Amino acid sequence: VHRIALDVMGGDGAPRAPIEGALAAMSEAASGLEILLVGDPAAIANVLPDPPHPGLRVVPATETIAMGEAPAHAVRRKKDSSIVVGLGLQRDGEVDAFISAGSTGAVMAASLLILKRLPGVDRPAIGAVFPTAGSPTLVLDSGANMNVRPGHLRQFAHLGSIYIADLMGIERPRVGLLNVGMEEAKGDELAVAAFELLRSDEALNLVGNVEGHQIIEGVCDVLVCGGFVGNVLLKFYESIAGFVLKLLHGESHAGQNDTDLERVFRVLDYAEYGGAPLLGVNGVSIVCHGSSSPRAIKNAIGVAVRALESGLIGDMAHDLASLHAVEVKP
Amino acid sequence: VHRIALDVMGGDGAPRAPIEGALAAMSEAASGLEILLVGDPAAIANVLPDPPHPGLRVVPATETIAMGEAPAHAVRRKKDSSIVVGLGLQRDGEVDAFISAGSTGAVMAASLLILKRLPGVDRPAIGAVFPTAGSPTLVLDSGANMNVRPGHLRQFAHLGSIYIADLMGIERPRVGLLNVGMEEAKGDELAVAAFELLRSDEALNLVGNVEGHQIIEGVCDVLVCGGFVGNVLLKFYESIAGFVLKLLHGESHAGQNDTDLERVFRVLDYAEYGGAPLLGVNGVSIVCHGSSSPRAIKNAIGVAVRALESGLIGDMAHDLASLHAVEVKP
Repeated sequence: VHRIALDVMGGDGAPRAPIEGALAAMSEAASGLEILLVGDPAAIANVLPDPPHPGLRVVPATETIAMGEAPAHAVRRKKDSSIVVGLGLQRDGEVDAFISAGSTGAVMAASLLILKRLPGVDRPAIGAVFPTAGSPTLVLDSGANMNVRPGHLRQFAHLGSIYIADLMGIERPRVGLLNVGMEEAKGDELAVAAFELLRSDEALNLVGNVEGHQIIEGVCDVLVCGGFVGNVLLKFYESIAGFVLKLLHGESHAGQNDTDLERVFRVLDYAEYGGAPLLGVNGVSIVCHGSSSPRAIKNAIGVAVRALESGLIGDMAHDLASLHAVEVKP
Repeated sequence: VHRIALDVMGGDGAPRAPIEGALAAMSEAASGLEILLVGDPAAIANVLPDPPHPGLRVVPATETIAMGEAPAHAVRRKKDSSIVVGLGLQRDGEVDAFISAGSTGAVMAASLLILKRLPGVDRPAIGAVFPTAGSPTLVLDSGANMNVRPGHLRQFAHLGSIYIADLMGIERPRVGLLNVGMEEAKGDELAVAAFELLRSDEALNLVGNVEGHQIIEGVCDVLVCGGFVGNVLLKFYESIAGFVLKLLHGESHAGQNDTDLERVFRVLDYAEYGGAPLLGVNGVSIVCHGSSSPRAIKNAIGVAVRALESGLIGDMAHDLASLHAVEVKP
């Protein structure tokens, strides 16, 4: 049985969107899935008078962390918030995964505090799935770490590779380093030093430097970068996709046979990928976009189930611990 | 009379695309424009058997710097390349501006070497025009400087503000700092320190931090950032625009009344803006995209003319020298 805690108080559509996402996931799932809806019982009862499925349970949490609150402070102060309660369920072994469409910063801070880091991981990172013209690319870090060192990028490459291998079934995921040119020795100080580290690590399948315009081509499965540029790219991509889709929206209803337009839609539709995992903590913690639809939440639940079925956290612990052992050799 | 040197050997469509761009510019220009076509006379004669306009002249250059060459080395070695010859014409007062669709790195290196920096400018920057849903945004640095310090971002803000004021006629251009959050104290070490510097500079019209998703909204006229993230963003934007436009291409010929589609096209069409100025050198040096069409070249010539008419370089020299004087006060 896979048990997942879902923060139903997070996101623009809360609590309805997360609850509807959970219902959709339960109706599609084989038996063996339990979802604990964490939040204000009255608000939940408003949407869901009686839990319609024995696999759904309500776990009360009386507080909510708002989007604007300072994450670390809010997490320490609001012990009965849906984020802190939900992650506490995972720490205590009541569930195996946590999903929230609430404040990314708060989920990150609470995950670090409550789940802790995996041994060998200095900086957990957010992995955001970028749709591309080919297979999707996991970009990390997408915003957890502002000031990173080359060794952190190497850890991101390992975390991302294991994630893609376990969840997508890709045996040796292609790793790219985000950079301003293809040639080695290109880039800022971070990229130049990181390229050397990544290249000399035989456990990684490095394809080399990846320039901005290559991302959309899907030239790698894992793209590593610092959290500043990753976050800017992610938000920029989402906004362009949203802009184009909004303008095309009328067209798509015109009833014509728009296979090309459909392709644009499919490529730019983030909901397909359902949330960004926080990689490097000792547990499964998935952050969904604040504007997540029920479908996006349902897909995030699917991601969590695949993470649990594949033994993601055990695989990461094993790989990163051995990486660390190599690094501290005299 | 405005005299402009155009490198006709640079870019994928050379020499035909630059030459056709020059012809288009001449046919639209009022009298008082002279364009010196710099390149291989035989290749030029192939496209243009006889200069069809007294304002067009050919200046021979026997060498070409290819896209893959190491810029600094190529510029020092190839004294008779179209880039070095064209910029030499500006240094010697034969022309007032230089335009090339060749190697950005080589144009940059040659501009620094031949035109030199303006007093008070530590790091000239590439300003790339990002189309937005509102008015376009000048993003700088878009790739000239990999490792920048907060003071450089302040200089970029001044250079960009003067450029937008002079070329667009916007009196107090809105300046944004690219960042991962709206609140102050957000971002990496560079952004945190730069925010303070920008805020305390009363000559700048700072609107604050600008997140990735706000760029497309056109919330500022000038967006400052380091050259690494700027370059990644620029190439990423171009590639998404190209991807969407390619998929929509068939649709646009369907003859329907596609005002929304047309709007997508207009927003995403880089050719409209015709090239990125290298700001902070003592002269006008404009880099065009390697795939520039004749229309993009024509528009770049228009940008150069507006820069000359507005007295851009004099305005920058005046502003940056006084900025520097303030900075070196005891």
